[in-house]
Amino acid sequence: MLSDGEREQLKGWNSTGREYDGRGLTHEQFEQRAAERGAEFFDDEAAEDVHSFIESRLVELVGDAGRRLHTGRSRNDQVATALRLWLRDEIDRVSESLRGAQGALLDLAESHADAVLPGYTHMQRAQPVLFAHWCLAYFEMFARDRERMGEVRRRVNVSPLGAAALAGTSHAVDRERVARALEFDGVARNSLDAVSDRDFCVEFAAGASLVMAHLSRLAEDLIIYATTEFGFVELGDAVATGSSLMPQKKNPDAMELVRGKSARVFGHATALLTLIKGLPLAYNKDMQEDKEAVFDTADTVRESLDVTTTVLRNVRVREARARDAASVGYMNATEMADYLVRRGLPFREAHEAVGRMVLHGLGKGLELHELELEELRRFSPLVSEDVYEALSLERTLSSKSQTGGTSPARVREALAAARASLVEG
Amino acid sequence: MLSDGEREQLKGWNSTGREYDGRGLTHEQFEQRAAERGAEFFDDEAAEDVHSFIESRLVELVGDAGRRLHTGRSRNDQVATALRLWLRDEIDRVSESLRGAQGALLDLAESHADAVLPGYTHMQRAQPVLFAHWCLAYFEMFARDRERMGEVRRRVNVSPLGAAALAGTSHAVDRERVARALEFDGVARNSLDAVSDRDFCVEFAAGASLVMAHLSRLAEDLIIYATTEFGFVELGDAVATGSSLMPQKKNPDAMELVRGKSARVFGHATALLTLIKGLPLAYNKDMQEDKEAVFDTADTVRESLDVTTTVLRNVRVREARARDAASVGYMNATEMADYLVRRGLPFREAHEAVGRMVLHGLGKGLELHELELEELRRFSPLVSEDVYEALSLERTLSSKSQTGGTSPARVREALAAARASLVEG
Amino acid sequence: MLSDGEREQLKGWNSTGREYDGRGLTHEQFEQRAAERGAEFFDDEAAEDVHSFIESRLVELVGDAGRRLHTGRSRNDQVATALRLWLRDEIDRVSESLRGAQGALLDLAESHADAVLPGYTHMQRAQPVLFAHWCLAYFEMFARDRERMGEVRRRVNVSPLGAAALAGTSHAVDRERVARALEFDGVARNSLDAVSDRDFCVEFAAGASLVMAHLSRLAEDLIIYATTEFGFVELGDAVATGSSLMPQKKNPDAMELVRGKSARVFGHATALLTLIKGLPLAYNKDMQEDKEAVFDTADTVRESLDVTTTVLRNVRVREARARDAASVGYMNATEMADYLVRRGLPFREAHEAVGRMVLHGLGKGLELHELELEELRRFSPLVSEDVYEALSLERTLSSKSQTGGTSPARVREALAAARASLVEG
Amino acid sequence: MLSDGEREQLKGWNSTGREYDGRGLTHEQFEQRAAERGAEFFDDEAAEDVHSFIESRLVELVGDAGRRLHTGRSRNDQVATALRLWLRDEIDRVSESLRGAQGALLDLAESHADAVLPGYTHMQRAQPVLFAHWCLAYFEMFARDRERMGEVRRRVNVSPLGAAALAGTSHAVDRERVARALEFDGVARNSLDAVSDRDFCVEFAAGASLVMAHLSRLAEDLIIYATTEFGFVELGDAVATGSSLMPQKKNPDAMELVRGKSARVFGHATALLTLIKGLPLAYNKDMQEDKEAVFDTADTVRESLDVTTTVLRNVRVREARARDAASVGYMNATEMADYLVRRGLPFREAHEAVGRMVLHGLGKGLELHELELEELRRFSPLVSEDVYEALSLERTLSSKSQTGGTSPARVREALAAARASLVEG
Repeated sequence: MLSDGEREQLKGWNSTGREYDGRGLTHEQFEQRAAERGAEFFDDEAAEDVHSFIESRLVELVGDAGRRLHTGRSRNDQVATALRLWLRDEIDRVSESLRGAQGALLDLAESHADAVLPGYTHMQRAQPVLFAHWCLAYFEMFARDRERMGEVRRRVNVSPLGAAALAGTSHAVDRERVARALEFDGVARNSLDAVSDRDFCVEFAAGASLVMAHLSRLAEDLIIYATTEFGFVELGDAVATGSSLMPQKKNPDAMELVRGKSARVFGHATALLTLIKGLPLAYNKDMQEDKEAVFDTADTVRESLDVTTTVLRNVRVREARARDAASVGYMNATEMADYLVRRGLPFREAHEAVGRMVLHGLGKGLELHELELEELRRFSPLVSEDVYEALSLERTLSSKSQTGGTSPARVREALAAARASLVEG
Repeated sequence: MLSDGEREQLKGWNSTGREYDGRGLTHEQFEQRAAERGAEFFDDEAAEDVHSFIESRLVELVGDAGRRLHTGRSRNDQVATALRLWLRDEIDRVSESLRGAQGALLDLAESHADAVLPGYTHMQRAQPVLFAHWCLAYFEMFARDRERMGEVRRRVNVSPLGAAALAGTSHAVDRERVARALEFDGVARNSLDAVSDRDFCVEFAAGASLVMAHLSRLAEDLIIYATTEFGFVELGDAVATGSSLMPQKKNPDAMELVRGKSARVFGHATALLTLIKGLPLAYNKDMQEDKEAVFDTADTVRESLDVTTTVLRNVRVREARARDAASVGYMNATEMADYLVRRGLPFREAHEAVGRMVLHGLGKGLELHELELEELRRFSPLVSEDVYEALSLERTLSSKSQTGGTSPARVREALAAARASLVEG
Repeated sequence: MLSDGEREQLKGWNSTGREYDGRGLTHEQFEQRAAERGAEFFDDEAAEDVHSFIESRLVELVGDAGRRLHTGRSRNDQVATALRLWLRDEIDRVSESLRGAQGALLDLAESHADAVLPGYTHMQRAQPVLFAHWCLAYFEMFARDRERMGEVRRRVNVSPLGAAALAGTSHAVDRERVARALEFDGVARNSLDAVSDRDFCVEFAAGASLVMAHLSRLAEDLIIYATTEFGFVELGDAVATGSSLMPQKKNPDAMELVRGKSARVFGHATALLTLIKGLPLAYNKDMQEDKEAVFDTADTVRESLDVTTTVLRNVRVREARARDAASVGYMNATEMADYLVRRGLPFREAHEAVGRMVLHGLGKGLELHELELEELRRFSPLVSEDVYEALSLERTLSSKSQTGGTSPARVREALAAARASLVEG
Repeated sequence: MLSDGEREQLKGWNSTGREYDGRGLTHEQFEQRAAERGAEFFDDEAAEDVHSFIESRLVELVGDAGRRLHTGRSRNDQVATALRLWLRDEIDRVSESLRGAQGALLDLAESHADAVLPGYTHMQRAQPVLFAHWCLAYFEMFARDRERMGEVRRRVNVSPLGAAALAGTSHAVDRERVARALEFDGVARNSLDAVSDRDFCVEFAAGASLVMAHLSRLAEDLIIYATTEFGFVELGDAVATGSSLMPQKKNPDAMELVRGKSARVFGHATALLTLIKGLPLAYNKDMQEDKEAVFDTADTVRESLDVTTTVLRNVRVREARARDAASVGYMNATEMADYLVRRGLPFREAHEAVGRMVLHGLGKGLELHELELEELRRFSPLVSEDVYEALSLERTLSSKSQTGGTSPARVREALAAARASLVEG
């Protein structure tokens, strides 16, 4: 009834083989794997799908016992099991890559321990911060990511095996024992749920999306800091792209791609949620579409982390330029206000007085600390000679001495704690 | 330089007041709240934004001390703090609503303890399952949802206060003490991260999206089961919509809306991720856009759960019809195969023999258990008189006796365990 | 400075070659193409990226003139040009597949010209409709899709060539002539826009998403109609999946996958929008990420259409069963109300009288047309003998005789018009 | 059977009134409208939903004839009609706002006709461009947006009236005449499609998403150009936010919000697609959820355009600073290469020679045009005295003289054509 073309078309369409095709293996990687095992290992025209393929290979390896593979099992619980086993390992790899990025951030922070750069709000200079403090902000994001991945892993690592097609099995399968043998943390408690649950895919994609969101922010910061105009960092030749014509140009291609790839992972998260929306219980073929989204998410998030780590290891901070930028723009206005508050001026009045000082400075093209004592005292008689020390970059930084602040002492402690947390887990 | 219209436009645009307008309060709800406190309480033309408003009210209530509100604080850490406090409470309410839906599922399961319906794969009848087993599948989904919400809550419940604008504060604020007073679990460890982190919004929206995905599947099942064609359940008049013309028609409007509203929450999750993509550190005004998405997500997921709970409490299972449906369609074919396997026939051969029996039955318009023993033996001499007991609906169910299976004994245990888990926490 | 591993990693990361790897060519397809041209044609280790590759092949073919390829051109306008050329062809292929699906719908409608099935609102039976009318609803959706694709094509088919890197070229390139030679409809009017515009990718993905949304609805209808409970259609063996154990089971795998794949395309549309959000002018490397999303969208939408066409050509309508379903459930209640209105009863009163008749019928287990004339007249004396003709399925259908209605005459006209529109364009 | 609380909950849930609540009217706006008509006009406890409300008001106004409102109509086609009428008007308003933004871009371009700034690729300086050329890039994007909105409008402006519940009407309604009276362009051709089609909502949201994507790019450019580091533009006080403490700080809040709000509109587009995925024909209550997404999309896109227009009218270009930036960074390297090519050097060799010159210049801290003729000739004897003119900023610009290039002559023509296109339509 079907033409040959239609038959081929439908075979390709339904085949679960297809889903593994899309796995994001490059041609080279696939060739390599096939080579390791002997390419013909994977050739099996007779196999209806990956499950038949595994069964026939098992029979080859262990004989007739292999034919018992499907006893108390079904494609529905087997495919869920395979995906969970695979994802469990991928999560471990992603966590390791997160740790790698965290390590690179700490190394970078430590090798530029005294560097200062402007902190921004609304992309306007606001207050100076230690470069190490900036590194630690991203360290914190990745720490949350690792924590989340650990939680997702616990819900991934639950065995559906023995749920069979949807109702459970009538064979005397010891589900708990099988789960232990496969190093699962436990077994799914309801067979209908076991074969139709894809929460763990969505959770992984949502967690990966947050990793990518963090990476996209880091990328944005580095791309901006590497512009001619900002000039706070320089990308090593190894991680930037130049041209024969303009050899001085260093395009931050790698970080732009990292930023761009966040979109792709967000798209996968959206797709996975949309996929399961409104699906009746229990198994529906739609669910086969979970694979490529999850595979590509795992590959992308891991590679994006590793590439970022490499970039971080090849960034040079232009400390003098960054410090200069952190010293202009009235970034010590808050310090001046605090100075006046400490001398007894109410908060609101202090703010207004400083506002007037800044306007005065602007008119003369001078920073607050470049104004004469006389001039400053015109705005508030509470100002005295020690104001210059209070307004210094060093004091501006060191005064932020509460937990989480950017004072050198706090940042040193935070670096040590961060380093210790990497060693622990 | 601006016209009056443009000035109004921009004021409305930037004002953080706007964000609270969209909070999804109906007009009535807002009126009611205002009435409770005196409507004029909220009228404050002078307030620049919600922070100024709070400060001025505080001064009203406690006098000049109120003016110290901003000491060691900034809009940036305050708004993050307020949102976290609010979301912490909302998560508790959502968790309570999840528990409510779980309770309704258990009650429904227990009140139809013997009910059976067909289990489906690909929307085709596959094997009979207990109705209580179906209820428990959704119970499991909501159990995962509660677990996830608990994890999100821990990351929500971290205090940013004292991070100030972005660099920390130079005032001697004891951040840990303030955090304890506000019942936070801890303090954010990096000030740049503290004011720019919106992970907790995304996490909440992702968790809420999974709740909605589960509700959309439950809705789909109920809508399908309530069709004339399936007819497994009947919605009480209280939760269905009829018409004067066709009073017999019971439109499942409430559950259709629940299914539809999943889209809205997925959209919010997508929007929140997109919002933070590529934002440089630290605070950017874009982040104000987090509010409406989070507010509407919280309202929608909670209301969707509560409406579903009400519907579940007004569903009647048409047990006879469901049982009939579970008895036809060769749904005991697997049992027959298992019977033959137990008698020693290899797995594959058993499957093929049963396949031939089914085809034979189809030809005569009879189910397997309606065929004569003679006829069955034609396909396998291993069949004997006891086959009819093995093929009964009762045996088909009771044989699924491994953990998570649909046998009455297992389901009874699962119900008890589920009930206990609700009491615990 | 980089390890070998890091160097490889970055090379793979930045290389535009990568983007073509993911093109969704199966291994077989790629092998075939390579075979057609000689596999070694594509081996070029020296080529930095696809642009260098093309240049070196061109030099092979036409000699030194090939080296002028980049005169007045740049990677930035070339890659945009290549993508537009490719997408223009893909849109034509998608449009052809849309037309194919439309043809299959018309053939199906014509081969079941008299078939009737219940029309649903809220998945509850509402009024009977012709099966051909149902087919034409989907025909209309695909007609809109084709119209949209045509509009997108016009905006795709604009030449960026000569915009060079971003500012235009100083070489005397005749952009209009080049555009004509490549069969573009015109040239991009601003060089900055020309190299940074990816609207056409988003537009294509949005249009493809609507196609997939339509297919997902068609899939849902077919999956539901193919259930044991509805039983309105039967999928041919060729397009359904059975099992050796349950040979009567016909899983609608192909349509479930079509439904599932809508999620994937929606995800790509989301990703493409997210990708370009907030990118500064002009070209950024992020934009390289447009490729895989667009490639996979094109493949998926075309294959989904073609598979659906094949399924539609292998669907059998179970006319008797569908007609029976369309005859019960008080689906002629509206007709009865119209009958009374025609006899002079005000609209609201007619509705209420019919409502009472239906309740009476429900009590006796009888349809309206199965009630005695006496009984009906008890609810309204306006009823007379001719009511039975008015309530017949035939009259219920034929009365819907306005444009777009389901009367046989109107549907016949609509089929003819539809057929004509396929021939035209 | 329901508690009072549950009854209220469900009433609020199903009511179509709710959907209009969320319309994004601020409290003030609603009060105003109510005041215009008399507040009590909208009070109608008896009305089941908006359709009953309209009917009862119509009866008030025109008497008994109002009761014929539902003849040949149903809620299903009425709600689709109302939404299409509303959206048609909104599209016209959005198009007008697009035109307003285009006008502001042209005014800005003309008032800075000689301004030059660096053009960027990868956020690295690449080649100088006219500021007016940058304005025209966004003009082009909005031109495409207007074109798209026009196409969407044609598909919106189709009348579903007379499709009734789903099957058409048996009353002699002249659908074409009604459509003309409501100024529709035509009537929907299939009744099932007419009541279940929400393509037009998705299309509008997709078109609006592209507008927002363009605005987000414009916002990003302006935010970056307004940094201390770039300093190419200055936002007027009227459109920037300062503080009492740091009066010199000009936060670009309005444009940050525009950038942020793109996320919200993308989210709505995603939600609308997800909403209709897999819905069976014909009307389902889920579709009520289309309203808030479409309402908020329309409000957001229009306000975002208008706010951007206001900002554009209050931007000052710091021409000297921008021109300086456009003069350093070896941005005339391409010109130098073209110079050598014109003198006969092959393309590749020219590139390499220039690359060596740039490296030489870098070593001495000099731009190409700051090097001595002797030095330049060391890299290529083809260089002669006239090279300095060729390397001038003016020549670099004027040489880009093909269609769409940034030469002053071309840009002047493009401005004139753009202005003309605004007048036309």
